[in-house]
Amino acid sequence: MTGGGPDAYEAFRTRVERLTNVSHASRLLDWDQQVMMPDGGTTARSSQLAALSGLEHDLLCDRELGQLLDDLEGADLDPVEAANVREIRRRHDRSVKVPASLVERTRQARSDAFDVWNAAKADDDFSAFADTLAELVELRREYADHLAPDRDPYRVLYEEFEPYLPYDRMVDVLDTLRAALPPLIDAIRDSDVTLSKRALSGTFDPSRQEAFVRELLTDLGYDWERGRLDTAAHPFQRGSQFDARIGTRFDESDLLDGVTSTVHEFGHALYVQNLPDEQYGMPTGEARDMSIHESQSRFWENHVARSRPFWERTLPLAREQFDSLAGVSADEMYRAANVVDPENVIRVEADELTYHLHIVVRFEIERALVRGELEAEEVPAVWNDKYEEYLGVRPKTDAEGCLQDVHWSNATFGYFPTYSLGSVAAAQFRSAFEADVGALPEVLSAEGFDPVADWLREHVHRHGKRYRTDDLIKTATGEPLTADHYVSTVEAKYTDLYDL
Amino acid sequence: MTGGGPDAYEAFRTRVERLTNVSHASRLLDWDQQVMMPDGGTTARSSQLAALSGLEHDLLCDRELGQLLDDLEGADLDPVEAANVREIRRRHDRSVKVPASLVERTRQARSDAFDVWNAAKADDDFSAFADTLAELVELRREYADHLAPDRDPYRVLYEEFEPYLPYDRMVDVLDTLRAALPPLIDAIRDSDVTLSKRALSGTFDPSRQEAFVRELLTDLGYDWERGRLDTAAHPFQRGSQFDARIGTRFDESDLLDGVTSTVHEFGHALYVQNLPDEQYGMPTGEARDMSIHESQSRFWENHVARSRPFWERTLPLAREQFDSLAGVSADEMYRAANVVDPENVIRVEADELTYHLHIVVRFEIERALVRGELEAEEVPAVWNDKYEEYLGVRPKTDAEGCLQDVHWSNATFGYFPTYSLGSVAAAQFRSAFEADVGALPEVLSAEGFDPVADWLREHVHRHGKRYRTDDLIKTATGEPLTADHYVSTVEAKYTDLYDL
Repeated sequence: MTGGGPDAYEAFRTRVERLTNVSHASRLLDWDQQVMMPDGGTTARSSQLAALSGLEHDLLCDRELGQLLDDLEGADLDPVEAANVREIRRRHDRSVKVPASLVERTRQARSDAFDVWNAAKADDDFSAFADTLAELVELRREYADHLAPDRDPYRVLYEEFEPYLPYDRMVDVLDTLRAALPPLIDAIRDSDVTLSKRALSGTFDPSRQEAFVRELLTDLGYDWERGRLDTAAHPFQRGSQFDARIGTRFDESDLLDGVTSTVHEFGHALYVQNLPDEQYGMPTGEARDMSIHESQSRFWENHVARSRPFWERTLPLAREQFDSLAGVSADEMYRAANVVDPENVIRVEADELTYHLHIVVRFEIERALVRGELEAEEVPAVWNDKYEEYLGVRPKTDAEGCLQDVHWSNATFGYFPTYSLGSVAAAQFRSAFEADVGALPEVLSAEGFDPVADWLREHVHRHGKRYRTDDLIKTATGEPLTADHYVSTVEAKYTDLYDL
Repeated sequence: MTGGGPDAYEAFRTRVERLTNVSHASRLLDWDQQVMMPDGGTTARSSQLAALSGLEHDLLCDRELGQLLDDLEGADLDPVEAANVREIRRRHDRSVKVPASLVERTRQARSDAFDVWNAAKADDDFSAFADTLAELVELRREYADHLAPDRDPYRVLYEEFEPYLPYDRMVDVLDTLRAALPPLIDAIRDSDVTLSKRALSGTFDPSRQEAFVRELLTDLGYDWERGRLDTAAHPFQRGSQFDARIGTRFDESDLLDGVTSTVHEFGHALYVQNLPDEQYGMPTGEARDMSIHESQSRFWENHVARSRPFWERTLPLAREQFDSLAGVSADEMYRAANVVDPENVIRVEADELTYHLHIVVRFEIERALVRGELEAEEVPAVWNDKYEEYLGVRPKTDAEGCLQDVHWSNATFGYFPTYSLGSVAAAQFRSAFEADVGALPEVLSAEGFDPVADWLREHVHRHGKRYRTDDLIKTATGEPLTADHYVSTVEAKYTDLYDL
């Protein structure tokens, strides 16, 4: 028999499981660092994470793994096995092209850059970060050059995060958003309707907020046997199908923040909890990439938790903890959860609409940096000009302008677009859900959250990485990724809310 | 220059740090499993721990590490470097002698044995466990045979846990305890004095107990910047000098259990917190083996927390949480903490004196099993006879007899003696402390816990694995390990308590 038989697949499986288990160990160490670790633990933890990451790299580059991948070319594999081989093949082929010295230099530069960025932001002094940014851009250009010397380096970096959502489609999506959103935002700015955040503002004891969101998570269908909830400085989600944990935060003066943060992370966690148990350790037992992950969190955050029926259903739970909500209606809460604020310059505080213009600014600047069309020191001026052009506001400082996000200090160029792709995919999944099951608000009112969770499990979650991303979207919704559903959904929603 | 220069040491150091970091990652995963993990996480966690343990084995056996160790033979190293090489040399040499297939068979057998033991204990049916025990003994004999085919296999297994405390000295220590303790216990049994546990019994809200032991840990000198306290089914300690965590438990009806468990684990944690930061990742930055670790926990548990000045100092803290202690004196608490109960047949509930007889029984049975002088099915009868002989009680069931401990299901033959060695070393450290600083009760009364922590840091903690165990003891106390200090200390203490 040829090399590509069941024995080769078993040997491949053993190696990949080991690799994935190391990656899961890293994720737990990261979870622990964000939620449990005492401050003194940082030194040792960094060195543990670096060791695991080095091992992961070695396991991925391993020559015997490469040989097994060769043996499995053209072997008679079932579709799940073939998908597992495809995914590892891609990672292996990319990893072996990059010299270990570049990996190490990049790791070190990222590690050093965080403090530089942090200080520059605290001092509102971009010039203190400019050289670091230029160095990180150069390192990533070098990386892209090793992978594909003849291609646009920004494309290559984007494909790190979205291997199977074509770059041109991503550009189309952002073009559509940049064209469609400003008129809608202008109309809201000009509207006579003013929505108030008051219904969700006040004083809300954090421990009571926690009790409330625990009830809410149970109602949403979170499996507590396979997860846990903790508080963290930044909301996040980590783990596997057997143990998908949520980290959230509570703002004492703002009930909405804790709810949307928790529901957002629930969307990630539900995806992970529903991945197939029997494929744990293999790519088909892992979530698809960033955009699909973000589509799940945004589905639950924006289409569920910012809907009127959500607040009708959830208000009684909230009132159990907060007597002050006795006089507030579900409709007031719904409106408070959907205030559009074009004056805001901070991405992570942005509403559902302006959010994408924050992304477009970053995408355009990053792409120009990576392509060598823009120098690091030019970033603040370009940033502020673009904010003025797209959002109609000009940041007053670099701290609240181009230094606001941590991402560039981590050299994650090519990542920001996936946030918008996720929102857009969420709206497309919603349309497909509505075609299959019925209008989302009616379903939520009549049947609660289960039909939504069931549909997402069936069409998205249970597949893991079995399908390429574009195929997954096509299979689930009948068409390739498009921003049309997003645009029509928000036009309808905000026309109603702001009486446009 | 020869191969053994600074470059070889640096390459060695890089490899060892990676190995240790993987080990620390495993320890965190284990901590998490005991304290945080939801039940559903077990499957994935087992597979993560198996992957890390396999990687650790591979890193330890690595041929290039072997080559570096050879290069460093006779190189010009400072004493710390030489100690690091010595420790890794020993682990490497042992690991490469054992076939991977035996490692894997043993791992699998251990993993299967736990459930078999657990069920046999629940059903009080030793016969259901006998074959498993026999298989585990055989696997460990095979292991010992690979390491040293011509030596007593029990010795070889003992040296897994205590490489540097000579076997004959361990046997001497146990012989001394077996001779000295029964007369003392008989005298207590015959004494007219009866000590009562009443002062520490009652109803103690667990969350108030936790608040109390947190204050106590602060007073003891626990560094909260480098550690944390959680509750767990079994008290334990995990982590590095940067992050040495304590897991404890609280019994609502018994204040003593939470205090001794916490102080015991504090003893382990203080040792770890005081290991040298700059040697993190190397053997000299890790704790010495089991007996020394246990000497630290027993020092704090038995010589500090079971002393009269401890309760004089701690009673006000306890009263802050428990009004019911208003009428209880420190002396009553001291006496309640030192009740000797020869009727007890359960090791983990044993008092300071009878404890060692529980150990002697296990040692004698294990040694006979491993040497092939005893068959697994004969264990229950031998066990019960020995309990009758040494402790004057006969277990009524195997569940409370030879099935009581988990250790054999994990095939950790050779481990039990280290518990007694730890107690004995603790008393020896106490004598040395008293010679250096002053009588322990007086020092505790006058100056609190700091002089004790300082002495232990200086003479034990800061050395890590720099010295072999017997050298460490000799350097710290002026003589090799001996049970004499233990015997004289407990004779004086219990003669006073029981008016012998």
